[in-house]
Amino acid sequence: MARNESRRDELADAAIAVLAREGSRGLTHRAVDREADVPTGTASNYFRSRAELLEGLLQRIVERLTPSPEVLAELTALPPGRESFTRHLRDIVRRLLADRDVTLAWFEMRLEAARRPEVATLMQEVLVAGFRGDVAYNTAAGLPGGEREIALFHYAIDGLVLDRLTVSIAPDTDLDQVVADLVAGLLP
Amino acid sequence: MARNESRRDELADAAIAVLAREGSRGLTHRAVDREADVPTGTASNYFRSRAELLEGLLQRIVERLTPSPEVLAELTALPPGRESFTRHLRDIVRRLLADRDVTLAWFEMRLEAARRPEVATLMQEVLVAGFRGDVAYNTAAGLPGGEREIALFHYAIDGLVLDRLTVSIAPDTDLDQVVADLVAGLLP
Repeated sequence: MARNESRRDELADAAIAVLAREGSRGLTHRAVDREADVPTGTASNYFRSRAELLEGLLQRIVERLTPSPEVLAELTALPPGRESFTRHLRDIVRRLLADRDVTLAWFEMRLEAARRPEVATLMQEVLVAGFRGDVAYNTAAGLPGGEREIALFHYAIDGLVLDRLTVSIAPDTDLDQVVADLVAGLLP
Repeated sequence: MARNESRRDELADAAIAVLAREGSRGLTHRAVDREADVPTGTASNYFRSRAELLEGLLQRIVERLTPSPEVLAELTALPPGRESFTRHLRDIVRRLLADRDVTLAWFEMRLEAARRPEVATLMQEVLVAGFRGDVAYNTAAGLPGGEREIALFHYAIDGLVLDRLTVSIAPDTDLDQVVADLVAGLLP
């Protein structure tokens, strides 16, 4: 079972790599098998349909973007406030940019959601859960910013990360400074 | 010649529709011919390679996003300042959301730029020209905000529009209010 779980993760990781590199139309069970270097049919055994493949890939994106317990402990050790909020945000930006394939795959999934209602349903759930989680986390930690502000940060960070991972209007700007500017302006 | 230009635009529009609907791997000369309902080979006559097709499509995206002279006249009639800046921004958001295919195709091109250096070069030029244009426009009109602030608005508006055109964390928020919040926070 443990072995199956790790094989499943490996295939989901391969799917993420294919999606990031080839876009949604390149993502097939065959392409995942080739990417993972496993016998043809393996991906289909673990994910029986395209919908299951996308769902598995999406769960894996969330897993890979979740901060490690060490990082979380460090972040939550700070007293709640602007400084702590800024560090949280910098950590999110760092994670999104460090795992390029995951973040590009996430953007691909968003565009796929614009095309296919079944993907939209799936993405909506994950996206809104993440957003609600961020708002709840802020409230519980006594951090500033409610739903309205957190939404603005979501927009700005999505745009910033898209800029840095694709073509950039200001590739040399210091990222910590950008985050500081956003916090200075958007946090009440 | 006039007729050829309009045929060229028609093909570029078909390419935009295909890219928005199918993603970059679905964008072929054949698919453009089918979309435009013209004989096979027509798109290849106007755009000899995939690179030329992407370049033509990109020029057309810029054209379709350019505000009409009437709208521009209305916007520039206001005295420069926060109110005028806000109206400009609302107009940009309105245009990006109104022409869904163009904006989705633009996001597809950004992701394609992350995959292919030749597309990155092309996109970089258009993107940076647009950004520089925005900064120059603000300066010339005596509007507030320099390079640093305009970059923050670019990130936030990209993220907002991506959110609204794909899956949304806050689909019911009033867009004018979001823009007002961004201006209140990010404009010096």
